[in-house]
Amino acid sequence: MRTRKPPKGQKSNFFQGSTKRGPQRQKSAKSGSETSERDSWLYGDHAVLAALANPDRKIKRFLTTESKLQYLMEHQPGVVKNPSSAEIVSNDDLRDLLPEQAIHQGLALKASPLPEHDIEDVPSLQNSPDYSSVAILDQVTDPHNVGAILRSAAAFNIDALVLPARHSPPVTGVLARSASGALETVPLIRVNNLARALDKLADMGYWRIGLDGRADQQLDQAIKSAEKIALILGSEGKGLRRLTEEKCDLMGKLPISPKIESLNVSNAAAISFYEVAKSRLK
Amino acid sequence: MRTRKPPKGQKSNFFQGSTKRGPQRQKSAKSGSETSERDSWLYGDHAVLAALANPDRKIKRFLTTESKLQYLMEHQPGVVKNPSSAEIVSNDDLRDLLPEQAIHQGLALKASPLPEHDIEDVPSLQNSPDYSSVAILDQVTDPHNVGAILRSAAAFNIDALVLPARHSPPVTGVLARSASGALETVPLIRVNNLARALDKLADMGYWRIGLDGRADQQLDQAIKSAEKIALILGSEGKGLRRLTEEKCDLMGKLPISPKIESLNVSNAAAISFYEVAKSRLK
Repeated sequence: MRTRKPPKGQKSNFFQGSTKRGPQRQKSAKSGSETSERDSWLYGDHAVLAALANPDRKIKRFLTTESKLQYLMEHQPGVVKNPSSAEIVSNDDLRDLLPEQAIHQGLALKASPLPEHDIEDVPSLQNSPDYSSVAILDQVTDPHNVGAILRSAAAFNIDALVLPARHSPPVTGVLARSASGALETVPLIRVNNLARALDKLADMGYWRIGLDGRADQQLDQAIKSAEKIALILGSEGKGLRRLTEEKCDLMGKLPISPKIESLNVSNAAAISFYEVAKSRLK
Repeated sequence: MRTRKPPKGQKSNFFQGSTKRGPQRQKSAKSGSETSERDSWLYGDHAVLAALANPDRKIKRFLTTESKLQYLMEHQPGVVKNPSSAEIVSNDDLRDLLPEQAIHQGLALKASPLPEHDIEDVPSLQNSPDYSSVAILDQVTDPHNVGAILRSAAAFNIDALVLPARHSPPVTGVLARSASGALETVPLIRVNNLARALDKLADMGYWRIGLDGRADQQLDQAIKSAEKIALILGSEGKGLRRLTEEKCDLMGKLPISPKIESLNVSNAAAISFYEVAKSRLK
């Protein structure tokens, strides 16, 4: 599974010659994305351990502190399959390597990106033969929100998350940490043209249901008895764009009090995914 | 409504003599809390405009940029009732004043703290004469999560949010911004002894229902037909503490996939509040 074995026993100053701000803002030559070197690391328990467990990942570097590795070997045997490939570092090394205030819990990982999927792959990504749900985020830009939405998508068996290639955050450590491991289980599909992707979903038999506070009916009514659901959520401030809204077959709303303008988008997504999952159980 | 009129026309360098890091980490002499001076400001559209609209707030200082004030006067007439009380500042001033990376949108406000409530006040805080729901957070420490939970509480008519005095975040600008105005509408009750508060809620006729993945029944079943609900959520990693769990009359779970260990706590809260609100409509 590992592609190369980094030298063992490197301690403390494995970043020789680097200043504290050394590796920041260097472009990652390999990924070709706009992710900086510092942002391209995965860190934190769930994100790193889920990536280690994912056979689709090629692990390039796996950094951990001595005490963390020992803890994992004792308490979660099997999660680190190849302990000799781990580079032992200090907490200071990790702090220097990762974005400021990253909660790394003694773990950092650099891995190959996950396989990319197209909208045409959706049928092959179905969790169930009987029904399917995908979620589409129309310009949700905050990586914490997209990560939290991935986590809820995994919790409620959403088959894939579709994002426009522009106006969506790249896959960074922040996004992966908010996703708490779900980055490894819910396929992300980036599309250049969201309207066209929505047309293709319709061709595949999906009901395109937009979440919008101005809808005439509640979401639970809108999704009732749809076998294939493409649930579309807009950004918090602006909602769905007009072009996106025009592609919706139905609109649904959540029963929120007039005291508040809107829910946080990741909370609205969590409730919607929950409602979709419940509708499958009936 | 205003208590004092700050001098008008102060521009740009209203923080004369202060360095960029000047006001940081000074203890707020007035509030007596552990909130630093920098954290004690409210900022951002929803948090500031909701506080301005709240008659229970005494406004001490209201800072805005010239263009923002003009925009508000034109597009949201009435939200700034007393424009002459505004101190006109620059974006740089705001950046120097507020925590790093605070998304202030040209608005900062210092106001008196909101009135404090005790657990005995709960009956007087009911939104409806027919039923009541309160939420209890057992050691949820992240201010973003507590803020987002307040926002969902407002959306789904939760009467109050109960927090232990220790192991809960103070009311900072971060919390207020995540709450998106809901800090002004959902009473926060801080209690020294959570177990005793839960006893008092039982005396008032509340069913104490804990959210826990190990519960035998789904949450929607657990809350069914309860007129008064005290919904208890634990921290993400540790869940409910044993002492808290022992006080629960019932436990309920959400139908999440075994692929994921847990939901983000603010997402779990949003779904639970939604389910409580829906159960009231039946």
